[in-house]
Amino acid sequence: MANLRQASLRHANLALVARTVLGAGSPPSRAEVASTTSLTRSTVSRLVDELVAGGVLAEVGSVVGGPGRPGRPATPLVASTGRFAALGLQVGVGHLAARLVDLSGTVLAERHVVADLAGSRPGPALRRLRTLAAGVLGAVPAGCHVVGAGLALPGIVDADEGRLLRAPNLGWADVVPGPMLSAVLGGLGLRVGNEADLAAHAFAHPAPGRDSEPQDFVYLSGEVGIGGAIVVDGGVMAGRHGWAGEIGHVCVDPDGPACACGSTGCLEQYAGRLALLAAAGLDAATTPAEMVARVRDGDEKAQAAIRAAARALGVALAGVVNVLDIPTMVLGGHLAQVGELLAPEIEQILGRRVLSAAWVRPRVVVAPDDPAPGATGAALLALDDLVRDPAGVLGTS
Amino acid sequence: MANLRQASLRHANLALVARTVLGAGSPPSRAEVASTTSLTRSTVSRLVDELVAGGVLAEVGSVVGGPGRPGRPATPLVASTGRFAALGLQVGVGHLAARLVDLSGTVLAERHVVADLAGSRPGPALRRLRTLAAGVLGAVPAGCHVVGAGLALPGIVDADEGRLLRAPNLGWADVVPGPMLSAVLGGLGLRVGNEADLAAHAFAHPAPGRDSEPQDFVYLSGEVGIGGAIVVDGGVMAGRHGWAGEIGHVCVDPDGPACACGSTGCLEQYAGRLALLAAAGLDAATTPAEMVARVRDGDEKAQAAIRAAARALGVALAGVVNVLDIPTMVLGGHLAQVGELLAPEIEQILGRRVLSAAWVRPRVVVAPDDPAPGATGAALLALDDLVRDPAGVLGTS
Repeated sequence: MANLRQASLRHANLALVARTVLGAGSPPSRAEVASTTSLTRSTVSRLVDELVAGGVLAEVGSVVGGPGRPGRPATPLVASTGRFAALGLQVGVGHLAARLVDLSGTVLAERHVVADLAGSRPGPALRRLRTLAAGVLGAVPAGCHVVGAGLALPGIVDADEGRLLRAPNLGWADVVPGPMLSAVLGGLGLRVGNEADLAAHAFAHPAPGRDSEPQDFVYLSGEVGIGGAIVVDGGVMAGRHGWAGEIGHVCVDPDGPACACGSTGCLEQYAGRLALLAAAGLDAATTPAEMVARVRDGDEKAQAAIRAAARALGVALAGVVNVLDIPTMVLGGHLAQVGELLAPEIEQILGRRVLSAAWVRPRVVVAPDDPAPGATGAALLALDDLVRDPAGVLGTS
Repeated sequence: MANLRQASLRHANLALVARTVLGAGSPPSRAEVASTTSLTRSTVSRLVDELVAGGVLAEVGSVVGGPGRPGRPATPLVASTGRFAALGLQVGVGHLAARLVDLSGTVLAERHVVADLAGSRPGPALRRLRTLAAGVLGAVPAGCHVVGAGLALPGIVDADEGRLLRAPNLGWADVVPGPMLSAVLGGLGLRVGNEADLAAHAFAHPAPGRDSEPQDFVYLSGEVGIGGAIVVDGGVMAGRHGWAGEIGHVCVDPDGPACACGSTGCLEQYAGRLALLAAAGLDAATTPAEMVARVRDGDEKAQAAIRAAARALGVALAGVVNVLDIPTMVLGGHLAQVGELLAPEIEQILGRRVLSAAWVRPRVVVAPDDPAPGATGAALLALDDLVRDPAGVLGTS
């Protein structure tokens, strides 16, 4: 009984130390971990040694004169690279992606294909995804353990059942992807989530070389449609059923155009990728970079389309800020690629339409350009199980 | 040191037992409190005895054959009535209220006056409120201890500083009401909050004779404008700065009428009390009951005004449900008084505009008719301090 209690205390403390290091904005020393966790320095040192030996954490260089003991260098701790990873998959309306992502958030291998899946059947699309996944799993570096898999889907999801309930822009409803992917997953468990939630999860993840991110933000994931997620204290607010954050279907104008969801005037009918290109008189294959170039070159139709999208985003997001009191907006996906054009106008509208703007000015942040951040978030979701209980991969020593 | 630890454990357990009884949907027995709190039955009995003797809790009748010991009646526990109370104050755009509310949520004394405070100066209004407060405090029943005071204000508030930052419909900005009320408050601390947040807090409070309420809901407080609050797990979600829930300023139509907040097309410009009456061609003194009668009598202009308000509420609330995944809406204030007319139309729009409506159908609940639920919520907020640490009023036995 005493041994059982000790074992469970050790598990809990390993998890606490791992979470503290992996969630830190900048790499902490052992002394800083002790201070954050209220564990003794000797306990922390023992647990860190275990996590380093087991390949969960790593020590980076040495900094003399850090907050450790005088004369003794403080060694910053980070997530290990390349030792534990998960498979992250993404079905977008316009693409498929498979990634191998390790605990540090580094992409170790990747397959990405552009594919028009609007109105597609799930079977063929998931078979193509399976091929991409097999390619990535065939490229796992030596010494790297794949501990799980995640799948990002552009719609509302029942995460417990691993079921996609509805993805209006794919035209899919009631799809359970797990069994169709099991041949390539082997024994790996598959976590399923909404792509915007998972892209936001990836954005909230401290990444090497990036400044620490805001802990509260609203994330917009632009593709054919627009997904959204709300992040509070670094965690995605899923809502009671896991369906929070559907900002793409906030109404901008009740008399506006019909949306695939059955409603009218939804945000994505103004600022979704296809809507934006159509308003600019450009065909669906035009890249966001070409769109930016046209706006810069003075193309009036393209300029008007960007203004209309920014106005719709400003109106919808002002409502979100008024309701949630979260003043930081992050533009992802195609919205990031045209973000420099959108951000100033959106900020101006938020300043006018948000009741509390005089006290805390809302701001718009442009996410890094990445074709499949949902795949990275899906892999990180699968890795969360390891972070929650690192003892599982360390053995029972 | 051991005594200090014991004392703090006793304080924490008294608070746990008090919170468990006061937060229960139906009056629990000692055995049920023990089961909920994981404390032993003998510990619970000792703590309940203290709380009953101290006047925080009360025992109601006896139920033979309850879940207590066989043959021994289980006595349901409730909040005491009339022993501890707080002063709840409310400044509305159309009224002032002062209430004495006890731990059970019962209003022991009340003063309420209709007053047009749109564009008023804070000084005279707060002096009138002071007179109402003095009247209520002069009517405190014998044996009743007033432990604190709260004030509900129709705008965004800095609760820590006790400051009203901005109330567009009053035309007030940067007002600190505490000092102007201190002459009548004596030594009572004053908690300040947003009126919709506090009305929602009152609605979430288990009330005698009312069915248990939903734990997650969106509350709309209709007066001249429309305030809002988001309740999750029975608690008001205040947001990072305390400004969440401003649903009255969600945009329904960017090209709509100008709002006092500086924006355009805000929900309250369609469904606020004055907007509704103006659309119906009725003067500002018309009561909601008269409005209902006109609609029932076939007055087409009144019917169109209700339809337009329901449509605006449906559009704005659909956005809130899509973003928050909370499918229960509660209509309070004047929206409750015309709620039977609004609810079916709003539910229909939510069914069409909420992405997840096919799985969880959004529903609209009409709050009880009450001219100043914010005052009740303000008093309950002040009483929360007692519930959090009941040892303070019990002495240190």
